[in-house]
Amino acid sequence: MNGVTGRMGAHQHLESSIVAIREQGGIVLGPGEVIWPEPVLVGRDAGRLRALGERFGLSRWTTDLGAALADPACQIYFDAQTTGLRAAGLRAAIDAGKAVYCEKPVTHDLSSAMEVVAQAERRGVKHGVVQDKLFLPGLRKLARLIADGFFGRILSVRGEFGYWVFEGPEPPAQRPSWNYRREDGGGIVIDMFCHWRYLLDNLFGPVQSVFALEAVHVPERWDEQSHRYTATADDAAYAVFELADGVVAQINSSWCTRPDRDELFELHVDGTAGSAVAGLRDCRVQPRGASPVARWNPDAPNSLALRSAWLNVPDDGVNAGGFKLQWERFLRHVVADEPFPWGLLEGAKGLQLAELAHQSSVQRRMLEIPALTT
Amino acid sequence: MNGVTGRMGAHQHLESSIVAIREQGGIVLGPGEVIWPEPVLVGRDAGRLRALGERFGLSRWTTDLGAALADPACQIYFDAQTTGLRAAGLRAAIDAGKAVYCEKPVTHDLSSAMEVVAQAERRGVKHGVVQDKLFLPGLRKLARLIADGFFGRILSVRGEFGYWVFEGPEPPAQRPSWNYRREDGGGIVIDMFCHWRYLLDNLFGPVQSVFALEAVHVPERWDEQSHRYTATADDAAYAVFELADGVVAQINSSWCTRPDRDELFELHVDGTAGSAVAGLRDCRVQPRGASPVARWNPDAPNSLALRSAWLNVPDDGVNAGGFKLQWERFLRHVVADEPFPWGLLEGAKGLQLAELAHQSSVQRRMLEIPALTT
Amino acid sequence: MNGVTGRMGAHQHLESSIVAIREQGGIVLGPGEVIWPEPVLVGRDAGRLRALGERFGLSRWTTDLGAALADPACQIYFDAQTTGLRAAGLRAAIDAGKAVYCEKPVTHDLSSAMEVVAQAERRGVKHGVVQDKLFLPGLRKLARLIADGFFGRILSVRGEFGYWVFEGPEPPAQRPSWNYRREDGGGIVIDMFCHWRYLLDNLFGPVQSVFALEAVHVPERWDEQSHRYTATADDAAYAVFELADGVVAQINSSWCTRPDRDELFELHVDGTAGSAVAGLRDCRVQPRGASPVARWNPDAPNSLALRSAWLNVPDDGVNAGGFKLQWERFLRHVVADEPFPWGLLEGAKGLQLAELAHQSSVQRRMLEIPALTT
Amino acid sequence: MNGVTGRMGAHQHLESSIVAIREQGGIVLGPGEVIWPEPVLVGRDAGRLRALGERFGLSRWTTDLGAALADPACQIYFDAQTTGLRAAGLRAAIDAGKAVYCEKPVTHDLSSAMEVVAQAERRGVKHGVVQDKLFLPGLRKLARLIADGFFGRILSVRGEFGYWVFEGPEPPAQRPSWNYRREDGGGIVIDMFCHWRYLLDNLFGPVQSVFALEAVHVPERWDEQSHRYTATADDAAYAVFELADGVVAQINSSWCTRPDRDELFELHVDGTAGSAVAGLRDCRVQPRGASPVARWNPDAPNSLALRSAWLNVPDDGVNAGGFKLQWERFLRHVVADEPFPWGLLEGAKGLQLAELAHQSSVQRRMLEIPALTT
Repeated sequence: MNGVTGRMGAHQHLESSIVAIREQGGIVLGPGEVIWPEPVLVGRDAGRLRALGERFGLSRWTTDLGAALADPACQIYFDAQTTGLRAAGLRAAIDAGKAVYCEKPVTHDLSSAMEVVAQAERRGVKHGVVQDKLFLPGLRKLARLIADGFFGRILSVRGEFGYWVFEGPEPPAQRPSWNYRREDGGGIVIDMFCHWRYLLDNLFGPVQSVFALEAVHVPERWDEQSHRYTATADDAAYAVFELADGVVAQINSSWCTRPDRDELFELHVDGTAGSAVAGLRDCRVQPRGASPVARWNPDAPNSLALRSAWLNVPDDGVNAGGFKLQWERFLRHVVADEPFPWGLLEGAKGLQLAELAHQSSVQRRMLEIPALTT
Repeated sequence: MNGVTGRMGAHQHLESSIVAIREQGGIVLGPGEVIWPEPVLVGRDAGRLRALGERFGLSRWTTDLGAALADPACQIYFDAQTTGLRAAGLRAAIDAGKAVYCEKPVTHDLSSAMEVVAQAERRGVKHGVVQDKLFLPGLRKLARLIADGFFGRILSVRGEFGYWVFEGPEPPAQRPSWNYRREDGGGIVIDMFCHWRYLLDNLFGPVQSVFALEAVHVPERWDEQSHRYTATADDAAYAVFELADGVVAQINSSWCTRPDRDELFELHVDGTAGSAVAGLRDCRVQPRGASPVARWNPDAPNSLALRSAWLNVPDDGVNAGGFKLQWERFLRHVVADEPFPWGLLEGAKGLQLAELAHQSSVQRRMLEIPALTT
Repeated sequence: MNGVTGRMGAHQHLESSIVAIREQGGIVLGPGEVIWPEPVLVGRDAGRLRALGERFGLSRWTTDLGAALADPACQIYFDAQTTGLRAAGLRAAIDAGKAVYCEKPVTHDLSSAMEVVAQAERRGVKHGVVQDKLFLPGLRKLARLIADGFFGRILSVRGEFGYWVFEGPEPPAQRPSWNYRREDGGGIVIDMFCHWRYLLDNLFGPVQSVFALEAVHVPERWDEQSHRYTATADDAAYAVFELADGVVAQINSSWCTRPDRDELFELHVDGTAGSAVAGLRDCRVQPRGASPVARWNPDAPNSLALRSAWLNVPDDGVNAGGFKLQWERFLRHVVADEPFPWGLLEGAKGLQLAELAHQSSVQRRMLEIPALTT
Repeated sequence: MNGVTGRMGAHQHLESSIVAIREQGGIVLGPGEVIWPEPVLVGRDAGRLRALGERFGLSRWTTDLGAALADPACQIYFDAQTTGLRAAGLRAAIDAGKAVYCEKPVTHDLSSAMEVVAQAERRGVKHGVVQDKLFLPGLRKLARLIADGFFGRILSVRGEFGYWVFEGPEPPAQRPSWNYRREDGGGIVIDMFCHWRYLLDNLFGPVQSVFALEAVHVPERWDEQSHRYTATADDAAYAVFELADGVVAQINSSWCTRPDRDELFELHVDGTAGSAVAGLRDCRVQPRGASPVARWNPDAPNSLALRSAWLNVPDDGVNAGGFKLQWERFLRHVVADEPFPWGLLEGAKGLQLAELAHQSSVQRRMLEIPALTT
């Protein structure tokens, strides 16, 4: 596990996933058969690695990635380093014949990501990319409704994502300042469109075209040292996607909005037989038979209680976080050869969508999404 | 008043506006000065005209438009006929030197509408087009917030309009079948984008460009006689507009959605100093200082009560419908020369936006909105 | 640090401020640059000093102030002694060329405070006075709303401070008995008007005149030994202030009231564009657009839910106490020369207001506040 | 009944009081003994008088006040005309030997009011002035607590009255524009201090001195015709009163505040044995024994739930409006000689307080209230 001294790696992948799997007794495959993850922590700072190991009762750590990769007991290489370092780590691990699993984005751009995909395919290793939103409770409920045929034919999807990121200095911004500088790899499109790609592809069918309009709504912000700086990266994007079978998806992403909904992200899905609104946690539905017979009569008072015509989808009792659930799927894929559809190519697709969305905004037109081949 | 035997004309314009103005004693301009509307009902069916007159205590009606236009006591020609008949009525009235006021769209297409505009300008008559949404309580509240500077600098606007129009035959569709046939002038873009144009222009500043993606989500419907027909007109459109000063407006319009909001139409406005959500009736606000400090942590439960961080804007006690309020403004314009910014050119602008939105969808690119000149 | 064996000094200044700053690793100025406070505890009781030092791991303490002032490693003299001893301590420290920081009131009366101010200016040392309320969460929220322009033009401020201080003997009084004896320097005006001065000056603009009516509502109390005594000092004061630009501030201070509000102290601010109520912790707002349209109809039941028309201002996540935040500002001022607007003159102004308020009550008229010059 | 064609007179005095008393079968004095009011409506507009009479089944009305006063069957003259006309009506009625009852203020200034008082005393007629707030449910509850000795010794009273009167034109002001012009008799002091006088005098003991600071917070408003005008009358006043026995009353009155309380007007009363907060409707109490033991520790979170330490005083089931209750008292006074302490002199006292409050604001000092003698 490379790069788990960072906040995300330590918390989501180590503590909430691998350590949690160990604490539950591993992953039971069958009678007497258990997957037991034995992590080796890899990083550059011995002190922090030791501290992390002690905290979770893990004795194996090293600053020498090559040595870890040379150890045949290590079957999987996991990478949660900053994006710029990821390609080199993945390449070394693939060379060493390890299965690889990594955070997204895979690299900083589509072409380098595709090189990693090609290398993994050539070497024949198993691989996966984190696509955690698919495993969150609200979106699992949505996936189940889709699988159940609840919607009839799905017609359209609207997504609203966002919240107000304060400009600073008081209250301080809730996100790092590099997010708002294009020259440092910032921007909401690169940050979020990887998520939109795998959510749309996996839930509703392949994204086929994209129109996006990027904006820099707040051009001046204050950084971590309370210094004013010029925001050069997109802080909002207004996008329309065409999916397979004529489904249209419209998704707004913004760090400059004050949400009037239940969750920071919600997807509204309309189908011939029913509709649903799914957030990260909750999901509610309206079947066709219970849809209010609305009439457009602007001069009349609102007579329909539209909001109360929705029913909550109950929890399934699986309380694990999305990261842990996906880790379990990947470990089963590696050990028991169970299917795992979220390989490196899926990660590359996210970068492809972000790059085409940016081009669309520059060219002010809708762009087709070509198939990716290695 | 031509065309008031139809549902819209009879209810919104005659009963709720002109008759209501008479019942309140006319429009008081000052001590001893009152505007008293004395309508002449014009139509093709003498029986229906007589019945309508009797119902509201109006003795003057005729099937002879020429005779009515020749009467110098008639100062204003009003037209609420079906769109195809409107141009001829307006042209005759303008020729006769009458002030003209009419329903929207002015005609079926921009070029014929501009001919009417030009004729009215040449003849020097006063003119107006119904833009009733501006006068609805929720949007008046929004206009007041804008005038008060509540938003600071406005950044973006999102609109959601729509409801589920049943396909028929059971439950029957809530709209006429011609709305779903392009060959009959149907489509949601032609129906609603006239409204979006004047709302955006009047509330936030001139619309400068448009991207729209039209869809025919439900291609088969059942008409008034329960016969199946092919829907050829757009029943949904996903649009992004650029307004002056970098403001972005994103508006979805759909007859194939089940709304999870308080009203069939809502506009969400974000500004540096606050945000608001306005429907036709209600409006709620969130000032910057009370904005939740949200953090994007998908694995954590929702800890913010986002929906309760909004305050309702109280009613101002003006309970008149939007149609009547605009009628009063137009009558004051004609009689007392008070300003009335919503002339025929504003109506033509609505058609322009609808036509360019359709072209945008065909060409799959964002189009500039050229200035309209006569 | 002189006088930190007292409750206030030990808790607020030593433990919650200096010790807390050490525990967080000092104050980081930049890469490799840290302010590290190394306190010397000064007092009259060696045993208590030693105990205090041991409790917080501080080895340096002395009963010899002169020796401490002679140590060139000591850069700052801090004084939290009882008020009567403060002037002498400050004067010795200023003579020794130390920066000085002290509790309020600076001395017992304006003229002696101004002598200290003048001495500090002549000697050219840096100086500061504790004005901790400015750094409390509720008042920082209020300051941010003001900076954001939330209020439009501010019109008026109402303050309510107070609670019921039991007369004793059972339940015992929550404050020392000297507070209720004028001959011992007691009184609510001298206790609280120093705070009102810096809050009003810093938040809303300079106080220009004062009217106050002092009262001794409860003339008999029981002291720490359960002996009855005559209360001679004001236990309540009803004051009206004029600030710059016509703003009126009305503040009641009382130890004889049972508060029906959320906090012991609350400031209600009304402006053209909105209102707020700020306590020490919390702050709530009502923007103009969401203000109920109230009508005064005494015979009708209350139809407005006035209290629910307010929105809470969320916390900014800065959880430090007011004393520590101000200490950090003063240390940065001394070490890194950052601005610090709350010098000894600001402390003297508090005494000036308290003295003029008392005179106002005696003379029963409103008094102007002259500018203070050294 | 003179002047009941106005809104206040027609609604509060005729419909809700006299007509209501008739509908309940009059006022029963004892077995077989009933007071039955038989009103004669007096005014200047015969049409409106007739319409009013028809609406309430009253056949007696006249435009000739002299004739009505000459009718010996008319025992009481009631006056709810505009203030400028009141003195002449009262004088004529007193001359005719009628008992007189009237709205407040009695006249526009103290000296003319005292002339009416003197005339009534000389002529020996019974007289009364409307002081309706005393009869409202919340203040009756307060009066009952005082009578019960709930407070022990009363120490102080705080009053907050006010709400936001919009400047216009949108939303329109909730009060007439003359209220904001001193030259037309406007101002919040003249409007409200008559009420404060009788409330304080009757509930807590005679007002002995007054300090007031008037303000014109909003100097520009829009009138009933949406024209801008300069507001010259006080729209807020910050007052401190001394009552008998050292009780201090502090009352703020403002049309430029957004109340954060339950009612537009609330009085907070503190006594040695308990406290209460009374509005027009509701009243809540906190007895000494249930008072939280509060401590002033600004750096600690609020640990006391101050607001929940209050108990609601239940309704007494008397649902009549304040106007009707006072009418019944006056009719009993005239017919059955029951005591009625709210004569014309009490009305004059209200004018006296308003005049002295204004002088206090001009002179910037506290003024004694001299005893009024005829």
